[in-house]
Amino acid sequence: MPSIGIGLDSCVIPLRFGGLSLIQTTDFFYPLVDDPYMMGKIACCNVLSDLYAMGVTECDNMLMLLGISSKFSEKARDVVVPLMMRGFKDCAEEAGTTVNGGQTVLNPWCLIGGVATAVCQLNEFIMPNNAVPGDVLVLTKPLGTQVSCNAHQWLEQKSDKWNRIKLIVTEEEVEKAYQDSMFIMARLNKTAAQLMHTHNSHGATDVTGFGILGHAQNLVKQQKNAVNFIIHNLPCIAKMAAIAKCCGNTFGLLQGTSAETSGGLLICLPREQAAKYCAEIKKVEGHQAWIIGIVEGGNQTAKIIDKPRVIEVETLDDGTVQSVPPTTTSRRPNHPKAVVQEPQKVVLQQIPQAVQEQPDLPVVSQQLPTIIQQIEQTPASMHQQTICNITPVTLQTSQQVQQVIVEDPQQYQHMQQQAQYQNHH
Amino acid sequence: MPSIGIGLDSCVIPLRFGGLSLIQTTDFFYPLVDDPYMMGKIACCNVLSDLYAMGVTECDNMLMLLGISSKFSEKARDVVVPLMMRGFKDCAEEAGTTVNGGQTVLNPWCLIGGVATAVCQLNEFIMPNNAVPGDVLVLTKPLGTQVSCNAHQWLEQKSDKWNRIKLIVTEEEVEKAYQDSMFIMARLNKTAAQLMHTHNSHGATDVTGFGILGHAQNLVKQQKNAVNFIIHNLPCIAKMAAIAKCCGNTFGLLQGTSAETSGGLLICLPREQAAKYCAEIKKVEGHQAWIIGIVEGGNQTAKIIDKPRVIEVETLDDGTVQSVPPTTTSRRPNHPKAVVQEPQKVVLQQIPQAVQEQPDLPVVSQQLPTIIQQIEQTPASMHQQTICNITPVTLQTSQQVQQVIVEDPQQYQHMQQQAQYQNHH
Repeated sequence: MPSIGIGLDSCVIPLRFGGLSLIQTTDFFYPLVDDPYMMGKIACCNVLSDLYAMGVTECDNMLMLLGISSKFSEKARDVVVPLMMRGFKDCAEEAGTTVNGGQTVLNPWCLIGGVATAVCQLNEFIMPNNAVPGDVLVLTKPLGTQVSCNAHQWLEQKSDKWNRIKLIVTEEEVEKAYQDSMFIMARLNKTAAQLMHTHNSHGATDVTGFGILGHAQNLVKQQKNAVNFIIHNLPCIAKMAAIAKCCGNTFGLLQGTSAETSGGLLICLPREQAAKYCAEIKKVEGHQAWIIGIVEGGNQTAKIIDKPRVIEVETLDDGTVQSVPPTTTSRRPNHPKAVVQEPQKVVLQQIPQAVQEQPDLPVVSQQLPTIIQQIEQTPASMHQQTICNITPVTLQTSQQVQQVIVEDPQQYQHMQQQAQYQNHH
Repeated sequence: MPSIGIGLDSCVIPLRFGGLSLIQTTDFFYPLVDDPYMMGKIACCNVLSDLYAMGVTECDNMLMLLGISSKFSEKARDVVVPLMMRGFKDCAEEAGTTVNGGQTVLNPWCLIGGVATAVCQLNEFIMPNNAVPGDVLVLTKPLGTQVSCNAHQWLEQKSDKWNRIKLIVTEEEVEKAYQDSMFIMARLNKTAAQLMHTHNSHGATDVTGFGILGHAQNLVKQQKNAVNFIIHNLPCIAKMAAIAKCCGNTFGLLQGTSAETSGGLLICLPREQAAKYCAEIKKVEGHQAWIIGIVEGGNQTAKIIDKPRVIEVETLDDGTVQSVPPTTTSRRPNHPKAVVQEPQKVVLQQIPQAVQEQPDLPVVSQQLPTIIQQIEQTPASMHQQTICNITPVTLQTSQQVQQVIVEDPQQYQHMQQQAQYQNHH
């Protein structure tokens, strides 16, 4: 029976029952986008990605981990927390699983994450260590999520850093990259995992905090065969490479060390399967995947070539993620108007409607009502801090929702009632 | 197939494979004792307790959740974090399971917890909802863990509250209650869970944040039959009832609402089995369990009678937990010297030896080394806060260890090398 303890993405624990394995993973972190609903989706997606990297397509259960910030005002909290939970839950449903349990605490920093668990037969997961020389490397989402979130924060704050990068990017481009990035992070790697089986994947990992190179290194070290990974192409969210170049050592995007959140799968595929794999993902999901490198004989090292080709990537009007033709790219700075999706629209279009349809927002932990009582008695004197490149964002409600809170207490109360936590037990 | 979603203690999810169920739970919180090793054990014990409450005795895998406080100095952190991890891991081993995976983040408050998962056949777990009138209620650990931790903190700080309670308790009594409490919280409910099967338990829950009455209420609401729970006896760590009485509304110990951490199981047993169950626990573990109430016909409510009998409980020299004979109790304030176990002894007797034997302390998350690098760049400006009765304690190393750090850098470096995290992948 294959077994991975403290493994790459998920542990694989052989069970006592005929050929079954327990595969599970946990992840939690701090908000990096200011839309609570999208943040919930991204957190859920990010946890599931560790299962998908093992080729596991069916998750049997999820738990939700929540830290409610002591900085939230009472009213903001009553809007933000249900939205975050709803985002997490909706994403779990989209993945075909459910959230049954979790824990909620009060914490200076808002915190969100979860646990994903699957019980699988041997043919339902793919060990990550079978790459052979001649394989190629495929990546299923573009890089640059961290860069786009930070650039967006600089824009919002009109900070010194914004003054530097605004010479090479427009506000619209940063807004669009941020919106693209949110939807990319909130996209499940489930199709990518399913197609690993049909295209004979030799192993995969998901790209998160260590950047593409860090995760390539982790994956190559696991390999049974003597191989190296060589990366030639870096698909990046449009304009993020330019921002990274402009910012000196702030981001290691082109060096492959820029942190990603809920990134794509990095997959080793037989050479003859790789193009078919990418075509099949495009057919099923509409989104592009990229061949980014090769597997050679070697000594378990991964590197990016000296001058990697940067592939600019953006989300088209139909919602699919695609490479931008080079000619278009060079024209982009003069492009009259990018399609900007306001974060407010995300919140207001998607949520209150959903809430109206299903007023029974579940409580993840029985402790939540108690915690929420306690929050009111807690001075909101804690402040969030910037840790290196990891910038916990204060989750905000959309401007419209905030206005409702301030201007129309009755409508707010109505929204609140609709979003009321109900304790099912 | 029985199924519990967002359930009482653990969720029970029917799997696709012949009669198997996934049973899992998560819990994380802030330190409440200042011995990192014991804190790790308590956190692990507390997570497993939710499985034990379901009669599950074999845990297939654990994940560890860690938040490393930005308040830790670099040196304290290098001692505290391995100790906390070691405590968690040792407790998991004692329970017959292993820790394979987890997540580590930097957080203003130190945070510790985990995930426990079991895959079980139908006869390996006990649904919590089969109490019948005539059953009796058994409790496997005494109450008062929160009171003892707070009283100990007041003593350490010589606070105003200490000045109030010192009229009725001695320093030695508070120290002893705190030590007793640590070992009680770090004790597994595994034997209690095993014996639930042999003594035909009708359901159980573990006593934690809501206090004995809160959890009794949660349990009674789950029952299929129309029943009430009536609690007559409150076994409490010695002197804690006196402190609670002295402190007005600070603790609801005698009202059953004082929070517990890693408390005992509250079990519904057939009347003819209860005394045998308690005798059997005592035979196997040495520790006492108590019949604390009865199950009557009713309408799913739980209550404590007007004047419950308080049973004073302490740990004897042989390490077992027992009721104190009433005569001894009344004499206790004048008892010349309680046996005080210094927290330092716990650390120094148990840890460095263990570390020497197994120098390969595992890293729970691949992110830990990165996080630890980041910690050094983070201003330690965050302060822990008191939230209601939940007081996050700053984990401390023993005085001896701290002295070593300051006075003998070489020996410290040696200790550090022994405790070095090694990344297994």
